[in-house]
Amino acid sequence: MRPSKRAADQLRDVSLERGFSRHAEGSCLVRFGDTHVLCTASLEERVPGWLKNSGKGWVTAEYGMLPRATHERMRREAASGKQSGRTQEIQRLIGRSLRAVVDLQALGERQISIDCDVIQADGGTRTASITGAFVALAECLSWMEQRSMVKRDKVLKDHVAAISCGIHNGVPVLDLDYLEDSSAGTDANFVMTGKGGIVEIQGTAEADPFSEEELQALLSLAKAGIATLVEKQRAALA
Amino acid sequence: MRPSKRAADQLRDVSLERGFSRHAEGSCLVRFGDTHVLCTASLEERVPGWLKNSGKGWVTAEYGMLPRATHERMRREAASGKQSGRTQEIQRLIGRSLRAVVDLQALGERQISIDCDVIQADGGTRTASITGAFVALAECLSWMEQRSMVKRDKVLKDHVAAISCGIHNGVPVLDLDYLEDSSAGTDANFVMTGKGGIVEIQGTAEADPFSEEELQALLSLAKAGIATLVEKQRAALA
Amino acid sequence: MRPSKRAADQLRDVSLERGFSRHAEGSCLVRFGDTHVLCTASLEERVPGWLKNSGKGWVTAEYGMLPRATHERMRREAASGKQSGRTQEIQRLIGRSLRAVVDLQALGERQISIDCDVIQADGGTRTASITGAFVALAECLSWMEQRSMVKRDKVLKDHVAAISCGIHNGVPVLDLDYLEDSSAGTDANFVMTGKGGIVEIQGTAEADPFSEEELQALLSLAKAGIATLVEKQRAALA
Amino acid sequence: MRPSKRAADQLRDVSLERGFSRHAEGSCLVRFGDTHVLCTASLEERVPGWLKNSGKGWVTAEYGMLPRATHERMRREAASGKQSGRTQEIQRLIGRSLRAVVDLQALGERQISIDCDVIQADGGTRTASITGAFVALAECLSWMEQRSMVKRDKVLKDHVAAISCGIHNGVPVLDLDYLEDSSAGTDANFVMTGKGGIVEIQGTAEADPFSEEELQALLSLAKAGIATLVEKQRAALA
Amino acid sequence: MRPSKRAADQLRDVSLERGFSRHAEGSCLVRFGDTHVLCTASLEERVPGWLKNSGKGWVTAEYGMLPRATHERMRREAASGKQSGRTQEIQRLIGRSLRAVVDLQALGERQISIDCDVIQADGGTRTASITGAFVALAECLSWMEQRSMVKRDKVLKDHVAAISCGIHNGVPVLDLDYLEDSSAGTDANFVMTGKGGIVEIQGTAEADPFSEEELQALLSLAKAGIATLVEKQRAALA
Amino acid sequence: MRPSKRAADQLRDVSLERGFSRHAEGSCLVRFGDTHVLCTASLEERVPGWLKNSGKGWVTAEYGMLPRATHERMRREAASGKQSGRTQEIQRLIGRSLRAVVDLQALGERQISIDCDVIQADGGTRTASITGAFVALAECLSWMEQRSMVKRDKVLKDHVAAISCGIHNGVPVLDLDYLEDSSAGTDANFVMTGKGGIVEIQGTAEADPFSEEELQALLSLAKAGIATLVEKQRAALA
Repeated sequence: MRPSKRAADQLRDVSLERGFSRHAEGSCLVRFGDTHVLCTASLEERVPGWLKNSGKGWVTAEYGMLPRATHERMRREAASGKQSGRTQEIQRLIGRSLRAVVDLQALGERQISIDCDVIQADGGTRTASITGAFVALAECLSWMEQRSMVKRDKVLKDHVAAISCGIHNGVPVLDLDYLEDSSAGTDANFVMTGKGGIVEIQGTAEADPFSEEELQALLSLAKAGIATLVEKQRAALA
Repeated sequence: MRPSKRAADQLRDVSLERGFSRHAEGSCLVRFGDTHVLCTASLEERVPGWLKNSGKGWVTAEYGMLPRATHERMRREAASGKQSGRTQEIQRLIGRSLRAVVDLQALGERQISIDCDVIQADGGTRTASITGAFVALAECLSWMEQRSMVKRDKVLKDHVAAISCGIHNGVPVLDLDYLEDSSAGTDANFVMTGKGGIVEIQGTAEADPFSEEELQALLSLAKAGIATLVEKQRAALA
Repeated sequence: MRPSKRAADQLRDVSLERGFSRHAEGSCLVRFGDTHVLCTASLEERVPGWLKNSGKGWVTAEYGMLPRATHERMRREAASGKQSGRTQEIQRLIGRSLRAVVDLQALGERQISIDCDVIQADGGTRTASITGAFVALAECLSWMEQRSMVKRDKVLKDHVAAISCGIHNGVPVLDLDYLEDSSAGTDANFVMTGKGGIVEIQGTAEADPFSEEELQALLSLAKAGIATLVEKQRAALA
Repeated sequence: MRPSKRAADQLRDVSLERGFSRHAEGSCLVRFGDTHVLCTASLEERVPGWLKNSGKGWVTAEYGMLPRATHERMRREAASGKQSGRTQEIQRLIGRSLRAVVDLQALGERQISIDCDVIQADGGTRTASITGAFVALAECLSWMEQRSMVKRDKVLKDHVAAISCGIHNGVPVLDLDYLEDSSAGTDANFVMTGKGGIVEIQGTAEADPFSEEELQALLSLAKAGIATLVEKQRAALA
Repeated sequence: MRPSKRAADQLRDVSLERGFSRHAEGSCLVRFGDTHVLCTASLEERVPGWLKNSGKGWVTAEYGMLPRATHERMRREAASGKQSGRTQEIQRLIGRSLRAVVDLQALGERQISIDCDVIQADGGTRTASITGAFVALAECLSWMEQRSMVKRDKVLKDHVAAISCGIHNGVPVLDLDYLEDSSAGTDANFVMTGKGGIVEIQGTAEADPFSEEELQALLSLAKAGIATLVEKQRAALA
Repeated sequence: MRPSKRAADQLRDVSLERGFSRHAEGSCLVRFGDTHVLCTASLEERVPGWLKNSGKGWVTAEYGMLPRATHERMRREAASGKQSGRTQEIQRLIGRSLRAVVDLQALGERQISIDCDVIQADGGTRTASITGAFVALAECLSWMEQRSMVKRDKVLKDHVAAISCGIHNGVPVLDLDYLEDSSAGTDANFVMTGKGGIVEIQGTAEADPFSEEELQALLSLAKAGIATLVEKQRAALA
């Protein structure tokens, strides 16, 4: 039995609240149960140096946590003077995941910066971030389409969403919350497209190594979960 | 006429939403119109080095802004590797303001850290932060009182709240929003207690110097505004 | 009775020694009793990025303390790798105060950087800095006028000087030294122009809040004190 | 045809030169073709704070590249003042991979720090690092066993090694060199134990998403490649 | 002919003003012509970690320059966030030079920190710093002897002073000022004791290499110059 | 008797292995006994800002140590976030020494960056670095000559090499290893050209001051040692 009484293949309550922010060109407050992340998309008419005069744009992401998003207060990264390895790893993952479904040529020489800020954490912040970031990005592209800057569907090749899975008490389960995450033997994050292609897979054995069969079971759970998330993205963007 | 159509002595819509955060011992989402700040209070059973074995506690504050809380995206302070002078100035002000109404002896050798994170900005973030931080702090002390750690009303000597005033188009006005703040000739922040004592006053002439009479007019507006804010604090904590 | 035996409205011995530095375009060693600050003005033929091609110049300030300017040695900020919040707050205040009396258009696209370095500290370093920085700035502008770069009196609209006041043992007093500052219940810094306009006011209740009447009393002391300081500036620049 | 003329399932020439360093308790110069990494193991009689008095030890890793290990000189991280996100991601991966086969209780309250420094890079530096780090770690534990500090085979539960795979010109291939890595559509790193359990899997679609079948093909290549690497580890440690 | 009209073996006007600082346990304002350095000695009842319980003390030095000590304003090191290589090299040299004449055992487990801050620079700041730092250190030790903490002459084994020499227009000259320093072909700094022993020698060929004969000529100049400086130290400390 | 049984004027076994690195334009693995340093030369078609449009090039150096190059593991400078004073001092010395034999005008507006990374340390890393760096630089210039970019012998005016000497147990000895270096009373580094000119001399008394005679003895040892090193450079470059 899962601590949250959920079935093994059951997502937490997921909501995607588009247009949450007044200033950003795109935004989404994503909730996976008690994990809440504010994703904003900011359009900038400049690109990183290595893309100048290339005709191509860029999509990048930054990730942060409010100091008391977690059970114990964590030190503020701005105060400690640097972003942790974990933060950098996550924001690189979010950026790569989004770029996998973006045609940078069709975007043109512009940068869209996605900020994912965790307001409250209960496990799965990186997968919630990717799922919400896609909605913020799509809203930003709609904003640009209204100003005749791009065709949104030329830039966005597909949906992208993410979910974590793990082996908890020997059972493969979907969408780990903090309690499960802390005690799971294996933890895997999957990033997949609307068409079911795999963009990223990151599996880690916390205690004992896992087998090919276990990897397969987690992948199956993830596919179903991500299909549901993509449905919710479509609804939010409708 | 003010851009927002408000009367010269009219506050924006103010709300104080207590218990917003699941994990923190105290929290408050404060809204002054479109300025939204999440304030959390975190109790820690340790004090800064210079207070060890003094029997006294400490209350401190940190302040941050989400990168796209503002009209233009700002660089994330965690990424740039340091907090700006403005950030440090504001968090020092919040901490001093709160300590002005706290009996550190009655708190005992513990630290309460208040995090004020601006989710959305439209002027007056520092005064909203102080006003909301007080509610988070009071809720944290109630949490402690329920665990017989302190008597809340021994620790809290009074309320404290803050408001900005300014001279806009030659007219003294209360609670500047971003539009007014950008064009105000003089900008002053007042921090006052429930009994009407002055805790902090910070007045700055952006263009021409101001006179004693103008200072007096701003102070009068502030007194009335802060009295209203203290009422709202009482209601939120009831 | 004040520890220094001074009357409540009595300044410390103040001296403004112009031309102290061999290399700087303007300089002033300012002494408020045992508080000694070396102020230098450096002319640079460049402006911050946001002023390029605006036709406007800029005046900025930096502040520092020698490690053993104080009773106890403080850590060198260059060694600790960052400027403290206090340092940043003070240097922002000095810059704003000076700009309040400068016509940046008349200065032209150039920057004057004022460095205020505390050689010895005994309270009131920020107000001494502002008072001495004005003299260094004026000398720099005279240097420029001799080279037909500007008309000094077009650039400088007025004098600006600053003084601290506080409530010590219940009595409002002028120009706190370190001993008084450490024990004062309320501490306020005033920055005013030669014509008596208020540029900045920063009042802080260290212990109990203060009243409007007390604020008024401090302001009256400051007005008289600043009038004297402006006289001394005129003498130094004559 | 692969640029290196290798068969799809063919590793580069791999060598593991144990005892390369005079000072370290364990060391290994690992070569995967033109990728050369020096791995050293340093024993320290202290543990991170959170393990004090736990009876448990710790194994951690750091990763670096000489500035001209690569085709173009890269900025020295010590000079730029921080480790890149990529560096941090890799050193976290190495540490997790090693800990997956270590009994931290059997190690006792000590820390072994593995430094993996890339002398020359030609793709696959992180997988070479893990493979060589295991040898350095094992040699360090033998050094400790000679001094009756531990039983090496109590501490080391299994071998661990790593290899990269990718889809190059539509064909799944083993052990990418730099040329293949730069142009591969999908890139996956596998970390596995001597018994064939999966410790880490990190798959990334650089261009188009990949399918479950492709993931399966890469995993099969990796299993065979890692089995060979484990053989070479055994030989090096014999 | 030297730009300053001095003879080849002539020092600039040198003064050593002891007791310059009100707060420090020892201090000296040293002037070598237009080079002015304030040296303060701060006694601290603690030692670096590696000396704890050793019974030995430590003498260390820090060096800084006011931003406009020089012809052109330099960036403030506290603002740039780190000390330059030059600064670190100089402060390491000052510390080593002082420790060469101190019996750290006789000092006892205490640290004396010498701060050398250049108020105005005209060449030779490091040698002026060493010469003045010795006076500040000696005054601090007298202060300690008055409190029966040490015997000054047990701690101080000898005097130490320093001077620069160089080859200017082919002629070996003593005590280079900025103008000579900028154009000297060879620049050498000598640190010597009262008894004439060599503590440090640092010679650098700016353009062409120098010969043994030239080194010998510089050393002879330095010996005479340092003998004079030691006389002035004795007079200042009398 | 020296710990290594060497005669007082005997170098350790020295080898200079040219072309060690696959990617760099020039490289040399230099060994002075158990001290091993990898030197690489990287050509960049840009110069520091102050040389733009001057027609002159630049040669600079960086120095680093692998964390376990030494007896005890040292903290990685990239992890601690800054280069130590010692590191900066050494890399400044290497750069100056090389520039002493380079005609920067003949190099043209390009920069050559020499990286000296200590793989294993046993004393004398800075002098081994200079000696090996010259070979890497010369190889880089040959690479450029093959591409008709420069005439190598126009750019290189002479050889440059370096050696340490010291007074060990009262006897002047050549080429200190770590054991001698730790206990030597005086330690001096000499940098000299092929023609025997002195480029740098850095002598430090670790305990008692040294005399002119001792300095002379060390210089004589160094001259002979450097002549041998220059021979080895010629052989390596032949």
